[in-house]
Amino acid sequence: MLRTVLPHGLTVVTEAMTSSRTFSVGVFAGVGSRHESAARHGASHFLEHVLFKGTRRRTAEQISAAVESRGGELNAYTTKEYTCFYARVLADDGDVAVDVLTDMVTASRVRSADVDAERAVILDEIAMHADDPSEVVAEQVADAVFAGSGLGKMVIGSPASIEAMSRDLVVRHWRQHYRPGSLVVAAAGDVDHDRLVEQVAALDAMPVDGPEPRPVRALPAVERPALVVTRRRVEQVQAVLAYPGAGLFDDRRHAAGLLAAVLGGGMASRLFVEVRERRGLTYGIDAGETTYSDAGMWSVEFACAPDRLATILDVVADQLDRVVADGVTATELADAKSQMRGQTVLSYESPSSRMGRIGTAALLGDGRSLDEVLARYDAVTPEELRLEAARLFGQRPTLGLVGPRVPSAVTRRWG
Amino acid sequence: MLRTVLPHGLTVVTEAMTSSRTFSVGVFAGVGSRHESAARHGASHFLEHVLFKGTRRRTAEQISAAVESRGGELNAYTTKEYTCFYARVLADDGDVAVDVLTDMVTASRVRSADVDAERAVILDEIAMHADDPSEVVAEQVADAVFAGSGLGKMVIGSPASIEAMSRDLVVRHWRQHYRPGSLVVAAAGDVDHDRLVEQVAALDAMPVDGPEPRPVRALPAVERPALVVTRRRVEQVQAVLAYPGAGLFDDRRHAAGLLAAVLGGGMASRLFVEVRERRGLTYGIDAGETTYSDAGMWSVEFACAPDRLATILDVVADQLDRVVADGVTATELADAKSQMRGQTVLSYESPSSRMGRIGTAALLGDGRSLDEVLARYDAVTPEELRLEAARLFGQRPTLGLVGPRVPSAVTRRWG
Repeated sequence: MLRTVLPHGLTVVTEAMTSSRTFSVGVFAGVGSRHESAARHGASHFLEHVLFKGTRRRTAEQISAAVESRGGELNAYTTKEYTCFYARVLADDGDVAVDVLTDMVTASRVRSADVDAERAVILDEIAMHADDPSEVVAEQVADAVFAGSGLGKMVIGSPASIEAMSRDLVVRHWRQHYRPGSLVVAAAGDVDHDRLVEQVAALDAMPVDGPEPRPVRALPAVERPALVVTRRRVEQVQAVLAYPGAGLFDDRRHAAGLLAAVLGGGMASRLFVEVRERRGLTYGIDAGETTYSDAGMWSVEFACAPDRLATILDVVADQLDRVVADGVTATELADAKSQMRGQTVLSYESPSSRMGRIGTAALLGDGRSLDEVLARYDAVTPEELRLEAARLFGQRPTLGLVGPRVPSAVTRRWG
Repeated sequence: MLRTVLPHGLTVVTEAMTSSRTFSVGVFAGVGSRHESAARHGASHFLEHVLFKGTRRRTAEQISAAVESRGGELNAYTTKEYTCFYARVLADDGDVAVDVLTDMVTASRVRSADVDAERAVILDEIAMHADDPSEVVAEQVADAVFAGSGLGKMVIGSPASIEAMSRDLVVRHWRQHYRPGSLVVAAAGDVDHDRLVEQVAALDAMPVDGPEPRPVRALPAVERPALVVTRRRVEQVQAVLAYPGAGLFDDRRHAAGLLAAVLGGGMASRLFVEVRERRGLTYGIDAGETTYSDAGMWSVEFACAPDRLATILDVVADQLDRVVADGVTATELADAKSQMRGQTVLSYESPSSRMGRIGTAALLGDGRSLDEVLARYDAVTPEELRLEAARLFGQRPTLGLVGPRVPSAVTRRWG
């Protein structure tokens, strides 16, 4: 990997992959919903939409056509911690992709008419999310687990905040947060580092207006709700059982990650075997982590018929208790490590996934190589795993449910 | 690409990708829901589930663990025309992956208890699909467009057919349809063709029982409904406007594919620009093709607030009429061809996508190379595109809706 930091702070990271005929590039800005005040709720995502609407050199259609007419992909997404604009193209089209992305991020016009048109689109996007029970349950659990912190807020904003969002506020958000020192350009595949550094110089010269954003609040010590329920007329209940967990740079997350693999990391995991294979109670069940730079969440997720919910939750609670009491076997731990290694190598096979990894690592300040991360997973001991289980599952969990009804046995035990 | 046909008819196709450290392999069986009688509705998918439940050498957990404990992926899916079992692993784990897949497909025990456990899981899977409005609208439109043909039936079966499915019927389905001559093994990445041919010999020796399946019925000339509606208490309406289209081997599909690109193939397409960019009426709108070996469907899809449905449908109808009347511009056609070429190259970048392409091509009898297919797209003329638009949009469409209500303006025009 090559890395260059330009005079005003823009970081460029690249990884050349010989034999790749394609090129993936992303512009990462260190701003997401956790950095937003109540009045700006959804501003990062709103801005992401608006930057596709036209620059001094290109209309919205010309922006899209420049990449799509060559079969490439041009898109963007906003998370709670950052915003990413990216393109994936044939190697010969790399210059065009970089030029379009740089143009969008530095020279968008942000006209009032465009802000109003995107307001309608985003309100539709909110309605679309609200129609998906699995998204609703994820959002309400995050809101409960990260209560009082910016990490609980939805990326997309609320209908009220989006209705009230002005052009002026969107532009101020852009000028305040898209500072060269908060921007990273990452590329992988058939890439020429020095050429890319020259091409993105405009990003290092972006004008800045407004105070430097203050560091975001860590997780406050507030009481979290034990049970959050949304009633929906659907056939299945969507359930998430969540515990506050380790952040990205917390050394404990290696044990927490392996614990997720043993308990719910695939069809041979304890929860899948107990709940689906042995009892046929649900189509699937997973355990996993959600990690942000300074906090995280460890959770079990499944969907089921309402009359099976109490039984499944009992099986899950029993399995978590067993790990706290007895730990895991040497074979389970070895398999989890081997699984983590294989998954990691397989998941960074393509230029686009490689670009995503080096871009977010540079943005969030993660200096570890993949090999270093894997070595740390390999070093986790059985006792470390048991201690992390005791720490995680010793906390009071939050149970999130979206479904037609909540059996009283569930309310009694988990409410 | 290398290709070997074994004595009883098993076909093995491979594509070695130098510099790949991974290996993707799939076993394809030429059976899906279109080959099922009413009593067997869902049998292909049911069988796919049951083949993960244990062989003479391995329990269900050992099947999963063999691949997952190395970080690999082992999974399967069933379509209307075929069933695929696949694995994606690090190159060193290729032998294990091939051994597990061969073992599952040839030597599963298919115990009654496993059939009953999977019955419960599949009934849950049906409920899960029923909770997703975008899946419901897709299924009901397919049912209408392919009315009277096996292509309209849901892959997963119905609650009644799944409740009644016996172990005996599942085994007979397996023995009748998993004939060596209907099986294909495909692999891509770091692969040794000759070694793979040796490893899968057991698939060529599979026992066969029951009559050779008869060729499936082509599309019958029945009257298709103009409007199919499912009422759901959701915020948005999911809409699909569909026309019967060309099959995979029909030369007309090249013009139809380019037409989909011009009208709804991304953010610079006519429909996206008119409906979202200019009018902000919806979050997104796409046009695309669904193709089977002998029939297909050309459709426009979007979701919107109910009170915007009539307006959007008017804009769509107007855009389709314009293409029939005036064709597309030379620039639009050139861009659509360039887009098709770039997308094709980008989409076959990974070993797993390459494996999928060569496997389905061998199974369905598509002997064309990618370059040949792309050359045919390049040769499409403006007049050919206009004629295909006239042919497609001259048919009566089927409009599928899932949502809270249907405005009367929509019923009047489209019912």
